[in-house]
Amino acid sequence: MKKVGVAILGLGVVGGGTYKILTGHRQNYMNAHCVDIVVESVLETNRERALACGVEEGKLASNISEICSNPEVDIVVETIGGVEPAKSYVLAALNAGKSVVTSNKELYCKYGHELEKAAKHNHVGLFYEATCVGGVPVIRALLDNLQGNNITSIIGIINGTTNYILTKMTNEGKSYADVLKEAQSLGYAESDPTSDVEGYDATYKLSILSGICFNKKIPYSNIYREGISNLSPVDIAYGKKLGYVIKLLAIGKDSSKGVEVRVHPAFVRTSHPLASVNDNYNAVYITGDSVGDVMFYGKGAGAMPTGSAIVGDVIYCATHTQHRYSTFNNTQSAAPDTKFVTNFESAYYLRFLAADKAGELAKITAILGKYGISVAKVVQDNEDGCKTEVNLILVTHYTREANIKKAVAAIGKDLADTAVEAVIRVI
Amino acid sequence: MKKVGVAILGLGVVGGGTYKILTGHRQNYMNAHCVDIVVESVLETNRERALACGVEEGKLASNISEICSNPEVDIVVETIGGVEPAKSYVLAALNAGKSVVTSNKELYCKYGHELEKAAKHNHVGLFYEATCVGGVPVIRALLDNLQGNNITSIIGIINGTTNYILTKMTNEGKSYADVLKEAQSLGYAESDPTSDVEGYDATYKLSILSGICFNKKIPYSNIYREGISNLSPVDIAYGKKLGYVIKLLAIGKDSSKGVEVRVHPAFVRTSHPLASVNDNYNAVYITGDSVGDVMFYGKGAGAMPTGSAIVGDVIYCATHTQHRYSTFNNTQSAAPDTKFVTNFESAYYLRFLAADKAGELAKITAILGKYGISVAKVVQDNEDGCKTEVNLILVTHYTREANIKKAVAAIGKDLADTAVEAVIRVI
Repeated sequence: MKKVGVAILGLGVVGGGTYKILTGHRQNYMNAHCVDIVVESVLETNRERALACGVEEGKLASNISEICSNPEVDIVVETIGGVEPAKSYVLAALNAGKSVVTSNKELYCKYGHELEKAAKHNHVGLFYEATCVGGVPVIRALLDNLQGNNITSIIGIINGTTNYILTKMTNEGKSYADVLKEAQSLGYAESDPTSDVEGYDATYKLSILSGICFNKKIPYSNIYREGISNLSPVDIAYGKKLGYVIKLLAIGKDSSKGVEVRVHPAFVRTSHPLASVNDNYNAVYITGDSVGDVMFYGKGAGAMPTGSAIVGDVIYCATHTQHRYSTFNNTQSAAPDTKFVTNFESAYYLRFLAADKAGELAKITAILGKYGISVAKVVQDNEDGCKTEVNLILVTHYTREANIKKAVAAIGKDLADTAVEAVIRVI
Repeated sequence: MKKVGVAILGLGVVGGGTYKILTGHRQNYMNAHCVDIVVESVLETNRERALACGVEEGKLASNISEICSNPEVDIVVETIGGVEPAKSYVLAALNAGKSVVTSNKELYCKYGHELEKAAKHNHVGLFYEATCVGGVPVIRALLDNLQGNNITSIIGIINGTTNYILTKMTNEGKSYADVLKEAQSLGYAESDPTSDVEGYDATYKLSILSGICFNKKIPYSNIYREGISNLSPVDIAYGKKLGYVIKLLAIGKDSSKGVEVRVHPAFVRTSHPLASVNDNYNAVYITGDSVGDVMFYGKGAGAMPTGSAIVGDVIYCATHTQHRYSTFNNTQSAAPDTKFVTNFESAYYLRFLAADKAGELAKITAILGKYGISVAKVVQDNEDGCKTEVNLILVTHYTREANIKKAVAAIGKDLADTAVEAVIRVI
């Protein structure tokens, strides 16, 4: 039976999960895939942690060179995360003739092109299914199943931490700050949650996914980004009444007008399949010109789901000899002919805190009208009649982002008795 | 640029869609995949139909031999359906050294093993993503992404016609017969709908999918099968009140006790992701020991979605040289050591039409208790109090199929004033 040696760089959550799956299923893989996959080496600075995972002392490498020069190692799994030292290690492994499987979205998003070039040069494989949406197989589906389509749109809930926070805020009516604190104490959010809650993590993944979808280089820095930290339970509650749920969406669209890529919170109609994706589940909703709408759903993070994606790549790599190299993964710069649409179209939920006096709604809608914005729904919430200020909610028809910005600025400036409290896109 | 020639056998709905996608995207595929995929030949007995699709007269083949001996043809797409002549044609193509892409679930389900052997013998590819769930990429996901998991369960809504009928019955309260008639007039159901509504189509697909999931030969004849034609709007309405929706499910489970494979209508809790899969959408919900729960959702049939799956396989085949051959696809017989669990466990919805007199419920529950069945919910529906007979609905806790059958038979036999109206499994 063919034997394939694996080295794992970094035995944290994902690396530990990968180690557990590979060692626990070794006999299964021999039976089902006729390949003996052996973890030959582990690089982990925290030796205690590695030993606690069950790694034998003798299999602990002291440095990357040891792994690169180990002839028993065929595939290197990188689960360190971040750019350095992961990047140097991955390049060293590729240049030493090892195939690489990585779960490192930041690395692949920022330096995918460089890694792909090194892999191609060395005739080895580079696999990155685990960079996006954990165990949910989206990347290979795009590359090997949906590649006959012109993909026109991808809409994803691709960050588990924010989806957990928003689900909690929605179900329990709690504030962002309170739920974040809970999530941190449960280990669902980092002590510095910025990358998740401000949408950076989602832009890395959207850069990779939309690159594949549209066969174009989509630098993550070209992605419009807005996080969830300013969302208020008041708006989530009004959204619920209107038949919406709040999600942090990663949206990519491609048309003759150009590419539109953005990460921001948005209201989703409850009838949309994405609306029922809750807690730490993720989903990606893709529209192709032939296939129509497809959705992929599952756990987007965690030791075992992400480990599942890595092991899927490891087995594929171990049983296939032909490799492919992507040309669209380079976030240093987009191709000169790629046009990015920033003045995109959307419906908008607007909440104003307005003086409860005659004519205020008329003034607001007059300004909206001036910018060509027509209103689909109005809710004025002063049922008990005892407040001097009321929440005035308007949902617009589809309009351009720039128009909304101008109208909202004009309302803030011209109407002394009206404050703009929230602007949330609606899909 | 590499040129790859394709022949299409059968230009019906799916073949027509495939032709349209391949010819319409030819330039895209050159740009994105560096391969020129050309439809070189079409075999279609209805010449009018082929010409109407835009096939040039000169590309219409007279018989399969012409295609097999055409050196310009590398890949043969089989979209005829049914066993013969599809089987002979596919074998002829494989033996002539052509790779084959098929959407023919009945053929692949019944003779997959024979076809795989012929493909292997001739060192050509055999692709069948389009046999299951249309454009939704499930087969490759199982083979290339989730193959590191022990898959414990697959639950699918994998027949579009029945899901359309059940969605209509649920939303509009209409009878099965009425909705079927509508579906037939719209072309959503065949004039002889047996294969769809009695669940045969779903057993073919479950045989293929569960074979891959469990890495075992699962003959379709080993699958328990029950169709939707006996479902009544009354039970669908009661189910709704209980928080259930009705679906035709294809269920496969694998455990130390054996393999459990069944196709039957079932109530699904509305909170389950499968509950919101409506109309002609399909979905497959898979549980693996590492990945947890994942779901794939999309259109399970139709010219373009199924064409998308075929074209995905064609491009993969055109750009990859290494082929793999399945050993688990042989429905002639299961392996001798495969145990099939027929006395499976489920919750059950039971509806009785009972005389509205004291003690009837006690008698029913006494008999259920005798067979070890405990009751989770009871609904007695005679609110207006003017009927002499009432609908008595009981939902049981998990119990064995055999116990329910015995209990229901005993109730039918022993209680003169109670008729068993419906037995529906609940997941």
